[in-house]
Amino acid sequence: MTSTVFIGIGQLFTADPECAEIEDAALVAEGGLVRWIGRSADAPAADERIDVEGRAVIPGFVDSHAHLVFAGDRTAEFAARMAGEPYTAGGIAATVAATRRAGVPRLVTTTARLVAEMLMQGTTTVEIKSGYGLTVTTERESLEIAAQFTPETTFLGAHVVPPGAGADDYVRLVSGPMLEACAPFAKWVDVFCERGAFDEDQSRHVLTQGIKAGLAPRVHANQLGPGPGVRLACELGAASADHCTHLTDGDVAALAGSGVVATLLPGAEFSTRSPYPDARRLLDAGVTVALATDCNPGSSFTSSMPFCVALAVREMRMTPREAMWAATAGGARALRRTDVGTLRVGARADLVVLDAPSYVHLAYRPGVPLVAQVWRGGRQVV
Amino acid sequence: MTSTVFIGIGQLFTADPECAEIEDAALVAEGGLVRWIGRSADAPAADERIDVEGRAVIPGFVDSHAHLVFAGDRTAEFAARMAGEPYTAGGIAATVAATRRAGVPRLVTTTARLVAEMLMQGTTTVEIKSGYGLTVTTERESLEIAAQFTPETTFLGAHVVPPGAGADDYVRLVSGPMLEACAPFAKWVDVFCERGAFDEDQSRHVLTQGIKAGLAPRVHANQLGPGPGVRLACELGAASADHCTHLTDGDVAALAGSGVVATLLPGAEFSTRSPYPDARRLLDAGVTVALATDCNPGSSFTSSMPFCVALAVREMRMTPREAMWAATAGGARALRRTDVGTLRVGARADLVVLDAPSYVHLAYRPGVPLVAQVWRGGRQVV
Ligand SMILES: [Zn+2]
Ligand SMILES: [Zn+2]
Repeated sequence: MTSTVFIGIGQLFTADPECAEIEDAALVAEGGLVRWIGRSADAPAADERIDVEGRAVIPGFVDSHAHLVFAGDRTAEFAARMAGEPYTAGGIAATVAATRRAGVPRLVTTTARLVAEMLMQGTTTVEIKSGYGLTVTTERESLEIAAQFTPETTFLGAHVVPPGAGADDYVRLVSGPMLEACAPFAKWVDVFCERGAFDEDQSRHVLTQGIKAGLAPRVHANQLGPGPGVRLACELGAASADHCTHLTDGDVAALAGSGVVATLLPGAEFSTRSPYPDARRLLDAGVTVALATDCNPGSSFTSSMPFCVALAVREMRMTPREAMWAATAGGARALRRTDVGTLRVGARADLVVLDAPSYVHLAYRPGVPLVAQVWRGGRQVV
Repeated sequence: MTSTVFIGIGQLFTADPECAEIEDAALVAEGGLVRWIGRSADAPAADERIDVEGRAVIPGFVDSHAHLVFAGDRTAEFAARMAGEPYTAGGIAATVAATRRAGVPRLVTTTARLVAEMLMQGTTTVEIKSGYGLTVTTERESLEIAAQFTPETTFLGAHVVPPGAGADDYVRLVSGPMLEACAPFAKWVDVFCERGAFDEDQSRHVLTQGIKAGLAPRVHANQLGPGPGVRLACELGAASADHCTHLTDGDVAALAGSGVVATLLPGAEFSTRSPYPDARRLLDAGVTVALATDCNPGSSFTSSMPFCVALAVREMRMTPREAMWAATAGGARALRRTDVGTLRVGARADLVVLDAPSYVHLAYRPGVPLVAQVWRGGRQVV
């Protein structure tokens, strides 16, 4: 069992409320886990010694919301939206059609490329949803592909009613045969609870059946307007309510009282030129906030957690510390993981060495690729 | 003289109004210049053959506004500003003090690191200003350092009145002995014409004396509020008026009538949470618009032209094509360069291969490092 000691850490952002940031720190990884954290001067010997020369070290990012199994490109739709022009050929339906045509090998290739791109940017844990197949076979295949890359697989058959289908018939399919085919490959069940997608009753039905099949719920909630998504997430004990852009005071109180994580996805507001969620209102009410990319070809094609941190600080008035916590420990909470997202003794040795003296540079230097090294389970992967 | 042919270019963004974008293109570089552009199927033979496999190719970015010769870090000031808290220890004065203390070797190292970071992000031409020394010796040294990295060196002794100096005395120093010491190492003279920095008469004096010393003028104008900067730039035939955030109709008309480039620096508005310049108003009036980073440790510590392109599209409603042109050909105009910023026969072979099928991905995929290869003068540098 090889041990590695990282010395000369100018700033260690632990995301652990017990110790927060440690200056001039060292960390020992062994057997894939963090074994020791302390002052650089007190660092014990180890098989391998990495001097990071004053750089900052942070936990690997936990991106708890991503749609990576798809084919096709919506560049023209993006450009039209940014120009304020109508664009009728696009939407999720275009991605669904391309995904159904693509076949498994091509989907594996594109998913692998996005996961690798995320890793280069410091993301060591990622959740991956289905939702662009919308047939029993293609949803199952999407989840089998997702499971090749992460244990955090989410069945999102209820992403949108596919073209040509009736909503109630489709809900029966999703919560019946599709769920049965997909459940073995999924940890989570998710639903896009929004006007134009699935209403409260349909969403409750899909989530409840998912729970019966052994999946844990999470919800796309209150993105495009006020709605029942957040309260449904709280009612069903979901791990997370994602988006949370349009909330009533009652929604905020429900989140605060329930322990449901509010996962904010500012990349979506950036790429759709929409108003950002009110992160301060949530934080000030005591809600646990996570940040994720929502990486998908339609509304948020960023794979960059550093970009989301910069947006959270600039646009949602989170402090750099709050944003970093939300992008690491917060994401882990949203996935109910205690082994990742923080750097403390016993946690998985997933860490990122930044080309910067402080984690604050992720917001202070927006757009600049600052990830120098990525280690996952104690092994260097970037 | 080695020749290189790039084939399989999915999309060639030339930034040349004559041909705009070419699908399925090829390009031949020889002797550091572009020798041939056409369809991939028609590509001639060359000594070296690079198949970019459907990727997009763009001109190297021209970052026409950057402050790279400095020491010190203003992370705490940034964090305080983002939190809306007062912070009295910061400002340009902090960087000036650190820069004066640093000594030439350390300044060379930090400048080199930022230039390399820019190159990694596709910037093949950069302008570098002095302005953090503010003594005859340190301003001259700053320009000597800048000249090691670029011919586009700008004397910005009139950045701010240094602590302890009287404004009129300092203007006499800048436009007298300091100018004399700096002119041999500078191509441009610049002044921060703004309330709290230099007023109209002081700015005109510095620029006029600079012109007499053989330098060409450019102006920091109308960033923080309305003011005389833009009209002064037009009066003196400056290459560029930079920032242009607060403009009257008269300012816009003056820019349109004068050929002075309006260089927009949205990184500064991002990092100071300020309103963005109205790019559409300028474009619709026929003003030539450039985009640049304003890379500096105080108000805009990004070095990323892709990030500025994404901001220009999201926040300033430039089309992806307008933003890309402004970040390449527009920057070249702002530096009065005809050899860079476009890909046409006879131009310098400065080009970037993107990990994307279209240049639009720079806006569609914000924050994602999409630069796969960088070639400068026909040689691969990244
Ligand atoms: Zn989503
Ligand atoms: Zn500037």
